[in-house]
Amino acid sequence: MGEVKLVEVREKILADNDEIASMLRLQLREKGTLMVNIMSSPGAGKTSLILRTASALGDELKIGVLEADIESTVDSEKIAAQGIPVVQIRTGGSCHLEASMVKCGLDAMHVSDLDVILVENVGNLVCPAEFDTGAHLKVMILSVPEGDDKPLKYPLMFSISDALVINKIDYLPMTDFDVESVKKRAQVLNPKINIFPVSCRTGEGIEDWIGWLMDKRRKFLAPSREERR
Amino acid sequence: MGEVKLVEVREKILADNDEIASMLRLQLREKGTLMVNIMSSPGAGKTSLILRTASALGDELKIGVLEADIESTVDSEKIAAQGIPVVQIRTGGSCHLEASMVKCGLDAMHVSDLDVILVENVGNLVCPAEFDTGAHLKVMILSVPEGDDKPLKYPLMFSISDALVINKIDYLPMTDFDVESVKKRAQVLNPKINIFPVSCRTGEGIEDWIGWLMDKRRKFLAPSREERR
Repeated sequence: MGEVKLVEVREKILADNDEIASMLRLQLREKGTLMVNIMSSPGAGKTSLILRTASALGDELKIGVLEADIESTVDSEKIAAQGIPVVQIRTGGSCHLEASMVKCGLDAMHVSDLDVILVENVGNLVCPAEFDTGAHLKVMILSVPEGDDKPLKYPLMFSISDALVINKIDYLPMTDFDVESVKKRAQVLNPKINIFPVSCRTGEGIEDWIGWLMDKRRKFLAPSREERR
Repeated sequence: MGEVKLVEVREKILADNDEIASMLRLQLREKGTLMVNIMSSPGAGKTSLILRTASALGDELKIGVLEADIESTVDSEKIAAQGIPVVQIRTGGSCHLEASMVKCGLDAMHVSDLDVILVENVGNLVCPAEFDTGAHLKVMILSVPEGDDKPLKYPLMFSISDALVINKIDYLPMTDFDVESVKKRAQVLNPKINIFPVSCRTGEGIEDWIGWLMDKRRKFLAPSREERR
């Protein structure tokens, strides 16, 4: 019964993961396909944001979805029902997506036909933040009923995300959730984070989120010298 | 760059964890201290349920709290402010509590003085379900805003829990959350699960939850032959 060297294994896994992720990111860039990794707690609204985004962009762009779920196909069925091409990755117990899983999913898609791939990570505010999936953009959702203390409790997720979507703002009147305090706390962790208060149910705020995503895509297709790095 | 034997390491870690957990459970039983492991997504109401429970039982029983958090001390400060003895375990990045971490926490408490220890696990519906903490009872919380599809998506958590607390029922009128469908789905996974719809905010339903917990404690102190196994 020797000691288990957990840390070293973890570092090795993370290093291997980063290598696959960098390769995926490069391959997708060459095809002009922007990949967006969407992360949140269970039930914060990943599938709803994907449906709203696909519906807003669907006339102009070809959108595909990669759905991660531990067991079920509930979410991918919702997406397929809207006529959006979707591939489901069953993680079989893993609490996060790794780049190798994403690679398997992409292999099952017609990537060259797609302008944007939205990846729905496993519902978890912890581990998905640690694993690079190969996406070009990382987006996290915090929903109002979860409470405004989450940046204090799950700082890594806020630190690594390009955008924070604060979803379910239609619940604000029922809670003591303080949007300004979340903004401040998130910006302390990550001064460059872009914050979008929205309601996927009512559609409020979605326009700003879509505007940002489109802008990011334009820069992705014609990167400036700085962004090419 | 050989292959990493992740699965074997994981099995070894789980086996070691189970051994420590069984030992803790036995030691606590000898002291007459009931330990309850409380699990949920971030923001579903673990701290609120702990505060409600401690307040309802505080006159009769000595309650202690073990708080797990990745980084912050927000929750333990709320609990300490109510005069409840609390020990904070900072998991430093780990997305779940392991028995060895709980052991460290218990070592810092006056366990013999306590009738009930409420353990607040890390906010996560996935990994905490896999790790036995040494608790005598496992309780999960699902909050209404998370949605009623969660038993389909996180089945292990529902399968291993003795009780399911459905929190934030005061949000029901704003949602299409179907309590009966959650009950059915949870019972398919776990026919013995005890289900308590509550609102920690308004106090609705808390009495039934407390009644169940007190009953479990009576059986814990004077176990029947079947329960001694």
